[in-house]
Parts: sequence; C-alpha cells; structure tokens
Amino acid sequence: MELEANHRQADPCWLRYAPVDHPERLAQYRKWCKELVTPANPSPLLASAIFELHQGIESMLHMKPQCVAVPAEAYSLCLGVKGQSALIDEALAPLADASEDSYVIRTISQDGRKHLLMAGVSERGALCSAFHLLRLMQMGESMEVINMQESPDNGLRMINQWDKLDGSIERGYAGGSIFYKNNEIPSHLTRVHEYARLLASTGINAIAINNVNVHERESWLIKLPMLSQVARIADIFRNYGITVFLSVNFASPIVVGHLPTADPLDEDVIAWWKQTAAEIYEVVPDFGGFLVKADSESRPGPFTYGRNHVDGANMLAEALKPYGGLVIWRCFVYNCFQDWRDRTTDRAKAAYDHFKPLDGQFEDNVILQIKNGPIDFQVQEPVSPLFGTMPATNQMLELQITQEYTGQARHVCYLVPQWKEILAFDTYAQGEGSEVAKIVSGSLYGRKLGGVAAVSNIGDDRNWTGHILAQANLYGYGRLVWNCNLSAEQIAREWIALTFGSGSTQRTEVILNLLMTSWLTYEQYTAPLGVGWMVNPHHHYGPNVDGYEYSRWGTYHFADRDGIGVDRTVKSGTGYTAQYREPNASRYESLETCPDELLLFFHHIPYTHRQHSGKTVIQHIYDTRFAGAEQAQQFLDAWLTLEGQMDEEAFENGRSRLLEQAEHAREWRDQINTYFYRKSGIPDEQGRTIY
Amino acid sequence: MELEANHRQADPCWLRYAPVDHPERLAQYRKWCKELVTPANPSPLLASAIFELHQGIESMLHMKPQCVAVPAEAYSLCLGVKGQSALIDEALAPLADASEDSYVIRTISQDGRKHLLMAGVSERGALCSAFHLLRLMQMGESMEVINMQESPDNGLRMINQWDKLDGSIERGYAGGSIFYKNNEIPSHLTRVHEYARLLASTGINAIAINNVNVHERESWLIKLPMLSQVARIADIFRNYGITVFLSVNFASPIVVGHLPTADPLDEDVIAWWKQTAAEIYEVVPDFGGFLVKADSESRPGPFTYGRNHVDGANMLAEALKPYGGLVIWRCFVYNCFQDWRDRTTDRAKAAYDHFKPLDGQFEDNVILQIKNGPIDFQVQEPVSPLFGTMPATNQMLELQITQEYTGQARHVCYLVPQWKEILAFDTYAQGEGSEVAKIVSGSLYGRKLGGVAAVSNIGDDRNWTGHILAQANLYGYGRLVWNCNLSAEQIAREWIALTFGSGSTQRTEVILNLLMTSWLTYEQYTAPLGVGWMVNPHHHYGPNVDGYEYSRWGTYHFADRDGIGVDRTVKSGTGYTAQYREPNASRYESLETCPDELLLFFHHIPYTHRQHSGKTVIQHIYDTRFAGAEQAQQFLDAWLTLEGQMDEEAFENGRSRLLEQAEHAREWRDQINTYFYRKSGIPDEQGRTIY
Repeated sequence: MELEANHRQADPCWLRYAPVDHPERLAQYRKWCKELVTPANPSPLLASAIFELHQGIESMLHMKPQCVAVPAEAYSLCLGVKGQSALIDEALAPLADASEDSYVIRTISQDGRKHLLMAGVSERGALCSAFHLLRLMQMGESMEVINMQESPDNGLRMINQWDKLDGSIERGYAGGSIFYKNNEIPSHLTRVHEYARLLASTGINAIAINNVNVHERESWLIKLPMLSQVARIADIFRNYGITVFLSVNFASPIVVGHLPTADPLDEDVIAWWKQTAAEIYEVVPDFGGFLVKADSESRPGPFTYGRNHVDGANMLAEALKPYGGLVIWRCFVYNCFQDWRDRTTDRAKAAYDHFKPLDGQFEDNVILQIKNGPIDFQVQEPVSPLFGTMPATNQMLELQITQEYTGQARHVCYLVPQWKEILAFDTYAQGEGSEVAKIVSGSLYGRKLGGVAAVSNIGDDRNWTGHILAQANLYGYGRLVWNCNLSAEQIAREWIALTFGSGSTQRTEVILNLLMTSWLTYEQYTAPLGVGWMVNPHHHYGPNVDGYEYSRWGTYHFADRDGIGVDRTVKSGTGYTAQYREPNASRYESLETCPDELLLFFHHIPYTHRQHSGKTVIQHIYDTRFAGAEQAQQFLDAWLTLEGQMDEEAFENGRSRLLEQAEHAREWRDQINTYFYRKSGIPDEQGRTIY
Repeated sequence: MELEANHRQADPCWLRYAPVDHPERLAQYRKWCKELVTPANPSPLLASAIFELHQGIESMLHMKPQCVAVPAEAYSLCLGVKGQSALIDEALAPLADASEDSYVIRTISQDGRKHLLMAGVSERGALCSAFHLLRLMQMGESMEVINMQESPDNGLRMINQWDKLDGSIERGYAGGSIFYKNNEIPSHLTRVHEYARLLASTGINAIAINNVNVHERESWLIKLPMLSQVARIADIFRNYGITVFLSVNFASPIVVGHLPTADPLDEDVIAWWKQTAAEIYEVVPDFGGFLVKADSESRPGPFTYGRNHVDGANMLAEALKPYGGLVIWRCFVYNCFQDWRDRTTDRAKAAYDHFKPLDGQFEDNVILQIKNGPIDFQVQEPVSPLFGTMPATNQMLELQITQEYTGQARHVCYLVPQWKEILAFDTYAQGEGSEVAKIVSGSLYGRKLGGVAAVSNIGDDRNWTGHILAQANLYGYGRLVWNCNLSAEQIAREWIALTFGSGSTQRTEVILNLLMTSWLTYEQYTAPLGVGWMVNPHHHYGPNVDGYEYSRWGTYHFADRDGIGVDRTVKSGTGYTAQYREPNASRYESLETCPDELLLFFHHIPYTHRQHSGKTVIQHIYDTRFAGAEQAQQFLDAWLTLEGQMDEEAFENGRSRLLEQAEHAREWRDQINTYFYRKSGIPDEQGRTIY
C-alpha cells in the first residue's frame, strides 16, 4: 500500500497549471507565448526557468512556445539575466542596488515588436520571475501591460526538514520522508525534484535537509560515502536556486571522527572540522553550511567542555568561512529537566539569558536562529524578547509550518496571520518601528545576513501536507518571507486560485473564510488566553489539561480552584517581562494593559477577573470553547457545499479531516470546560452543558 | 549487551540449593541421602524428580546419592508413585480420595531400615514431593521424623504468559520473552527448561504460553509448522508436570483457515476448529486447551456474528472435548469505547452483566476466567461480584503477578497479602463461608474444574523478574494456589530462606518487613481509597491524576473542587452495589459501613467527609501520601544495612530499584497532594509542603 501511494503521481499543488478557459485571456496569452527568447546555452538554473515556462504554458494554453535567441514574432516572452543584453540591463536599471535575487517583469516595445521581459539580477532572480509570470497567468491577470519589480525582504528564505534517516519525520504529519528511506537516500528522488520546484516557485532559497536532532546515523551525512548522496540532493536543489545545508551533531568529532573530545577549543577538534569542511566543499561546492542544535534537549554542545555558544559556533564558522559557508545556531536552549515544584525557574527566560550576554562575539558568518516565541510554537505566545537585543549579532526567525501544536494536519490552521503578527511585532529595539521583520532581514542594524527559517510540513503523502488546506501554509510561508507586506488574505486568495482555480466566487469565499478564521478558531477551543500546552504529552495532539503540568518541561499553567496562569511579572513573578524593552515591558507587566490573548502567559489571575472585554476569565473560557467548537462544525458544513467544485480526492480529504476536526473540537471544548468547571465550581452563565 | 545478558547463567532463584553449613544438619542430611530408592525405569516426569533430588542434594551436601531399586543402607530416601509397591501404597492410604497431584512425605521403619518416603498419587505428585523435601532441607528442617501429606487446594494452578511472538511481553518488565525471539521459537530453550523447574517446584501445573491478545502471527501457533515448535515447549513442560495451553484468536478460521467467517454456529467454522483440534492433539497429545480473550478490547469474538459467549465457548469446547481439552474463557469484557461524559455506563458492572445470565449454559469443559476485581488489577479494588453467582458454571480466578499497576518491577510490592484477601473474601453465595477460594476450587458448588491463573512477571532478565524482590511474587503465587491457607508471612519467610539463606535473623527480618508492608506502602502514596488509576496512560507507570479522567476506558474519579469518587450505589449511583449478595451489597451501599480502603470506589464524597478513623478524606490523602513516601525511603535505608549479607548483584539490584522507588514515591506524593490541594483549597493540618 505504501509503495503504491509513493508511486502515484504527487499532487502538483499550486503548480497545477490548469488550462485557461476564459476565451479572451486564452487568446491574449497565446499571442504572447508563441515565442520565448532565451540565451542560446542556458545554465542549468536558467534551463529550469525555461523548463517551467514551457511546461506551464503548454499545460495552460495547450501550445508550445518557440525557443529563439532573437525575437521574430510581434509578441514574445523574453527571459534573461543581468549582463546578457542591453535590453535586459536597461530593464534592470531600477534594481541597481537590489539584492541578487531581485527581478523585473515588464512589457516593452522595441523595433515595432512587443516583449514581455522577465529579467533577473541573478539567474535565481530570473527563475523567480518566470514563476511569477506563470502565477499571474494562473490567476488570469492581463499580460498586456506589466511593470513590476521584486526584491526579497529576506536574504535567507529557508526551510528546515526534520527528516530522519530512517525515513520518519519528527513532527511530520504527512507520511514519511521524501529524502530518506531505510537509512539511505533512495535512488529515485522524483519527489525531491518536485519539492524543489514547489519551493522555488514561492521564493525559497535555502534548505536544511535533515532533522536538527542529529543522531548517530545522521552524523555521517557530512562524510563520504553519505556525502556523495547528499550531493545528489544538492544537485537537484541547485538547479532551482536552493542551497543545501546540513544539520550537524556537535559531537561529530567523537561520533564520526573517533576523537576523544568535541571540545571546540581543542586543536584536533578544530582541525577535524576544518578538514571536514574541505571535504564537503570538494563534493558540494556551493554547500550552504551547518544548522546546529547544541546544548538543547540533551543534544551535545560546548557546555560539556565548559565552553559557551560563542566558542562552539565560532569554531564551526571558521571552518566554513573559507568557502562562504554559514553556521546557523539555534537559540532553543533551556533546562528540559526542570522540577515542576520549582517556580523560580522560567523556561520563557532561557534563550534571552543564554544569548544576550554574548552579543558581538559571534563570527560574521554565524546567524542565531530564534524561535518566534519564548516557549515552543504554541498557538498563542508572545514574541521572543531576544529579537533586537543583540545589535552586533545576526539573527533569524524560526517558524513552524508543520502544525505540531496547532492541529497536526488534522485540523485546519492557516498560520500566515500568526506569522504576520510576529513579523509586525514592534520590539522598540531602536525606538518605535523596530519590528521583528526589520531585525531578521538585517535592515534595522544594517546587517548583511538574516532571514527566516521554518520547519516544513511535507511528507510523502500524495498531497504533500496531509491536509489539503495545509498546503496553504507551505505556500504562504514562501510568499510571506519574500514579501512581508503581503497580507494573509492576499496570500490565501493566491493559493486558492492556484490550487482550485480562479473561478467560482462562492468556492473562493468559502475556502478563504475557512482559512482566515482557522487560527482563531483553533485557539478558541484549545488552551485559553496564551497559557499554552494542555496537550497530550510526547505527540502533542489532543486535549490534556494537566498533560504537562507535573512534567520536567517547564510548561505549566498552575490552575487551582481560584485561578490560573503564570506570573511572569517583575513585581511578583519570574521577572520575565523585564526582558522586553519599553513600552512592551510595562504593557505586559500590568494587568490593565496586558493583551487579553496573552493574559495567562503573563499573569496568574482569579477566574473571576474581568478582561478588557468585561467578561470574566472563566466565562471567556466557556464562551470561546463553545464558539470554537461551533465554528469547527461550520467549517465542515461550509466545505460540504463545495462538493463537485473540486476534484474528488481534494474534496474527500477536506471532508474527512474537517469531520475529525469538528468532532475533536467538541472533545477539546468538553475537556477544557469540564476541567475548569470542576476546579472553579462556577457555572456557565448561559447554562450550557458542561460535564 | 543483550546477547551477553541472555547467555549468562540465569539466576536459580529459590532453587539455588546453597551448601548446608550447619554441621549437625549436614551430618543428618548426609546420613539420609546416601541412597535414593527409585523405580528402575522411571518415566520422564519421574526422572525429573530424580534429577532434581540429585542436583539439589549434590549442591547442598556435596555428595551424590546412590540410585538403587532396593534399599541397602540403614537410611534411604525413597521416591515413588501409587501402585509401585506396597510400601508406597500404604503410605498413600490416607490420600485415597485426594486429587492426583497429592503426595505424602513420611519417615518409616521397615526391616530395621529407615526410609524417607516421597510418594505421589501421580507422578506429578511425586515430583512435588521431591521439591518439597528439597525445600525442607534448604530451610534447615530436621529429616528425622516427617509425616506430612499434601493435596492442592486448586485443580488448575496456572500461569498465563503475555509473551508475543516478536519477543516482547505485554506488561512485561523484566526483559524480553524466553519463549519467542524475532517471530520464532528459538532453537535453544534453556531458559524455558529452567522456568519449568521453577514453576513445578511451587506446584504450578498449567501454562498458557502466548499473550491473550492473539494477533496475526500468533494465530498460527495452532497450526504446523509453528505447532511443532510449540510441541518442543510442551515437551519441556511435560517433563515437569506442566500442561501447555495456547491463547487463540477467535477469528482464526478467517486468519488461518481463510474461511469467510468465524461465526461459531457456521458448519465450516465448527469443522475447521474440530480439524484443528485433531491436528493439535496429533502433535501435542496432552495439550491443555485454549485460553480465549474474545469480544474484549477490540479482539474478535462471537458478538460480530450476533452470537454470545456461550455459542463461542461451547463451539471450541466441543472441538476439544474428545481429547480432554479445556476452554478457558476470559470474562474481561467491557465497553472500551466509553464516552467519559456518560455517567450511566459503569465498567465495573460489565462482567457480571455479560456473564451471569449465561449460567448453566456452558459446556463442562469450559471454565470462565474472572479477574479478581471488576476493573483491572488495581492496587485496591473490591472482589468481582461475578464470583459465586454462577453455580452451574466453572469459574476460575485470574490474578496478575506482573506488577502492571503496582510498580512494574521498579517498586517493591509483595502481592500475596492482596491475593489472600481476595481468596478469603466471603461472597455469601451459599450463605456465610462462601469464600472465593471455595468457589474457584470448585468445592462450594461441587464442581470438578476450577483453579487460579495469573499473569507471569518473568522475562529474560538474568534474575527473571527485574526486581529481585519480585521473585517472591512468582514463588508466592505458586505456593498460595497450592495451599490457600498458607499465610503471606509464611510464604515470605520461605522465599527469603530459599533465596538468601536461612541464617541471619536480621537479614530475614529486614526483608520480611519490607515485603509485608510493601503493598500497603504502594497503596499509600498512589491513588487513594480504592479510586484507582491516576497513572500515565498506556504504560501505566507513574502518577497522572487525570491520566484516565477524560479517556474512553471507563476509569474515572470525578474529582472536582468539592469531592471525589464514583457513586456506584443503588440509591444515587450506577447501582453496581446490587451485584453483590447481602450483606456485602448493603455494606458497600452505605457510607457508614463501606470499608475505608474502598470508599472512593463506591461513593462520591466531599473532601471533608470523615472516615471511620475520624480523619477527613483530604487529610487522609495528605497523611498517607507523606507516610507512604517516607516508608519508601525507609525501605531503601533498611536495604542498605544488608550490604555484604547477600551477593553483590542481588544487593545492587535491590539498592538501585529501592532508590528509584523512594524518589518516585516522592513524585507520587507531591503530584497527588498538589492536585488535591489545588482543587480543594484545604491546607494540610500539619502544614507540610504541598506545591
């Protein structure tokens, strides 16, 4: 059964290039697409762009564009890279100072002929422009007059695969790995090729292809013969402008190199990593670098040797520097053997406490990768106070596309609205207007390196993401980190048009409404008011109010018969609020100004406390649980109206998952409500059933 | 490492036969043991008895007894079976009406010679007598004048292995299976042979060698070629008087026979089972029969076909009857997909509701195997009301030696005291004196078949049971079901003497005290007052007060801010108390008379309710949690005084496990106390730390 599933044609997702059925548009597109002007001997990367244009046009217009070096038709498409021709260079003039991934798409007239130029500052830019044009066509936009230029907001637009060599995926909910099977990289990498296309089409330019938890087997990926298999993957991604990184085991000198130590200041260790880097670049000349989870959740790191993160990261950075490689060092460092009885330790404070004192000490080719929140990808938590507090250090943002805590591809939870909030969060690091987006792009402190990484949600399921609607998160991630100003709705509308077609207003509106309200809905029936967790341990699916309450993970809600929440104030709690700059610190510190949705993250309060809405906390819990579960049922009802308006498989996938969500949302509602009713003894004002 | 562990000599447990170091005893024993009179051509079973005597005597006395057919020495041991000689038959005369496993041990004088007779009504009886004599010697008893006769209280004295073909053991905590490895029965069965010796020495006479959850692979054990491997195991056990049973899949006709149905009334199904029985008895002529878990926890059964347990059991019974085989049909049948919101369904009522109406309809060679309590092997629960309510049906008791809910071979929990209480429970089925012991032995209703089964606690750990002290449970089980009148302390003293030696009063008293108080101690720091559960789901180890509260398993405590417990009264609850006969029904129904230790099993009561002790429930919870954790620490402290008084390995095993228990008991204490303090808001009267 599994083999069969893997061998079926994978879902093309947003690259399905449905035939254009609007007669006028079809005529216009065909007029323009007769001819494609390209360089005579395109590089592999440019060849990918040409391939994509050919394939897309053929599929949408049922015609093959003629590839020529010199235009002959009255209308032509023209793909090129800076320096290729005067025409291209002139079109690129406005992008003189722009980053190399920038491009223009522009219609021009020359010698009585009309050209639709797709011109990239680099080849990658050209590829992006080709995908952009195809997107415009899929959405039915006119080609007659186009004049657009695009520059990515972030230098690194990265995907982190948490794939393991045994073929499983940590926090993966859409089948097995497309990269690994039975501890090998398989001989056929068709799905990897398709994945490269999908990612490149959204603007992704980097990928770490193995799980950040690097165990024995995975440690060997950096050495031959495994490395030559990694090179096969790098070849595929390279042709789509995507640079490959590897997650490495900090203890590799011991595990792989048979040295007695992995001490970053040990001469033999330093030499070993330098030698290893040399070997890697011999095989993968454009290797991106290392992603490192060190001294985190029992992974090895410099602490073992009495060294710190600077020692560890810089040692690796020096090994990679001669080749232009990067070290991406994760800041997800905290005590994961906490005693639940100990209320003085606050996991939320850990990243800031560990890293802020090290500002200015990291090498230039080190980037700190910081999870969006101080805890761990909860449906609602504040932005990490570490952003912006290290002006002399490269920082990047880590998001999670895979829905570990947000429904695991069984519930719909469109995450772009959450990511928008995170990027728009004003840290006040350099006064007002110091949003996270500006910090991670590097612009706020004028840093060259920065960007965003996110944990992928794909697997070898035919539809890639398990839930058809979860494709929107992968698509949306790429689009958003390219252009942080796109709205969540814009992105959703694009994805719906590309996936289901640009017709049918009703279908579009149903799916759009479903996506746009899904995050809030998930928040409504799960853990309330930013307190987080309340999930089943280990797998993190489904309600369990006390699931993490007596654990070692530092994730508590402290609910008793009178109230709930974590006091993180300076006045009476852990003092976490002081990690923020003003006015954020005061805003979170005071019950008067703390946003409702984060109330229980920052404060321990009685159930009878009235929120800004005027509602008591307990009544808010009841009301939102009932509303959220009701909304989940409405998602299903709305989906059922779409029968016949999309292919059977997509409809059935959505139907079965939304059915599970509706049922599961009721389970969440009842468990949360019952838990708090039994504890508080306060009845629902509306007298609804609580068990 | 695993291989090494498996290949090391297994611990001899209570058959270690330490050299006798008391000079006077040594001289006496040597005098008697010079000569062993046995039949000239002993059967394999009798040969085992001879082998055991030889081995034991040689080890204890450093001498080999001479095997003779006719006594020549002044003193001799004499082993025999009824009908062998006039001497033997005369000795057995008082056992004329006794069961075939009975025996005598008696010193007699004849023709100026002294004989120590070990005489069995059957060969199995003779083997038991040999082990008995060896036990007396190990304990340092005098051999000069012995006159004892023994008859087992129960016909079936059975062990259930929950071993799976893949080599794992369901609810096993002492390594992997000794019966299976990698889906095969291994070529070397040394450990099985050793296990047969251990079991036979305690009086066990039957064993089901595979898990009651019979999945695809295990279904094939009843057919060649797997069956020929089963025969190898049966050969080993047969030589020690132990009959082999198999757990079978009720859907075997489909899974193995490729029939379209397993309907017990279908002609093809009936024929298939008859044919299968014939094949089995061809290969294993003394095969015991089938153990069946049907329509229980998603295992297949007659319900699928609209049939009932009688239909299912009798169909199998008819197939086995021509060969004298038995069907042991488990009564652990309940709805395992319960909705926690539904308070009208009470899992405790299920077995009685399912089976009582079927009394008198089962074939004579069917025995219903009933778990001791109505729920599932909790540290404290009432006795199943099904016992004694089916006068025209064979019933047997199922116990659990493996400590699934009682500390899993990491905590010491000597279970014989619990089993004693169960056997002594008066059901009043035939008026006062209708104890469970009399029901399952068959004596109360004059039924021929009956007995006790228990889930084994052994694995391929060198010491068999993981925790050295858990050996006492396996030993104690065998001894107790042979003789229900033995006290828990007698059995413990025997085990200590056989395991650690009969010397050192201090060592004996420390271990005895530890064993005898261990069950109560475990109860004290875990779930209070008979409410049960409060463990982590699935693996059932460690505290989790709400672990099963919102689950589908029917195992709830209903704790809210005011009180806790399950109302199972007729007056206001589920009516479960009515399943008991008077006066038990009224005793449990009334808060005034309900025993404290079962208070929360039968009643939902406020935390401020005063128990018979005068203490409030909440204060009882706090006090016992503190006391239990303190006691666990004292276990460790006491054990540490024994250093040097036993072999290093045993000491270290006990030390490390008691250390874990002491720490874990504190975790239990704090989680339970904190949970109830947060919920009730009632402080500890003694002001101790609750988090």
